[in-house]
Amino acid sequence: MRIFLSVPFTQFVNEKGKVDSAYRSDIESVINILEESGHKVYCAPKKEGWKITDHDPVTAFKRVFKEIDACDLFIAILKFDVSAGVELGMGYAFAKKKRIIIASPTGHNLGWNNHALINQENVMNMNYSFFDELAKQITNTISR
Amino acid sequence: MRIFLSVPFTQFVNEKGKVDSAYRSDIESVINILEESGHKVYCAPKKEGWKITDHDPVTAFKRVFKEIDACDLFIAILKFDVSAGVELGMGYAFAKKKRIIIASPTGHNLGWNNHALINQENVMNMNYSFFDELAKQITNTISR
Repeated sequence: MRIFLSVPFTQFVNEKGKVDSAYRSDIESVINILEESGHKVYCAPKKEGWKITDHDPVTAFKRVFKEIDACDLFIAILKFDVSAGVELGMGYAFAKKKRIIIASPTGHNLGWNNHALINQENVMNMNYSFFDELAKQITNTISR
Repeated sequence: MRIFLSVPFTQFVNEKGKVDSAYRSDIESVINILEESGHKVYCAPKKEGWKITDHDPVTAFKRVFKEIDACDLFIAILKFDVSAGVELGMGYAFAKKKRIIIASPTGHNLGWNNHALINQENVMNMNYSFFDELAKQITNTISR
């Protein structure tokens, strides 16, 4: 299955634009588990070499949304702070009638909009405390 | 022109779910100016009577996205904090190839995603300090 993995990005980069290493490990563990199960995963921070590329955001943005067009499953990993990029992507994926999994941290209040979104057709919610467990929960769900 | 006016909502309600009155006045001034110019404006908090309705968010959410489908122009008013609802709506409107105006407060840093978005086709950015001036800027732009 072709998976678009949407994760908060710019919140987790340092002043040089590099992704925080602990956060990178978390996301890499999810990507690895999904890939080991035979899925093809697109994740923007990985694609961009775990750093923000500022030289051509307009083209990078277009590329990202083409990848959503091409995916079979859109997975959004939410953190406690709202991510503009993840929300934009979810709205886009919802418009394109993609199957969506929204993973939110245990104890997180989804807010009005995301709560309404997880109850729409083709959208499901998963809670996570650990990223590797989340990835296994995803692979179990989508192989069914 | 049929306008969908997307504004932060849940950030501006009190513990009883009622929209802050100063914020309501600001948004009403925008709606009034647009309507006086002959446009038809849908704005969720107005439609919901300036309060959060929690009895059926799933249906309310569906109704909102049907209104985006039907609009000729999607206007997003950003405030300094990221609004999940506005970002979701912009992603949806972008997928549906709607004409989009993103209004951001003067001095506000749009962030990577919204900055990339305002440079896409059919998307434009406006800065505002006062809501009535913003509304006039919008009516001048769309009547051209």
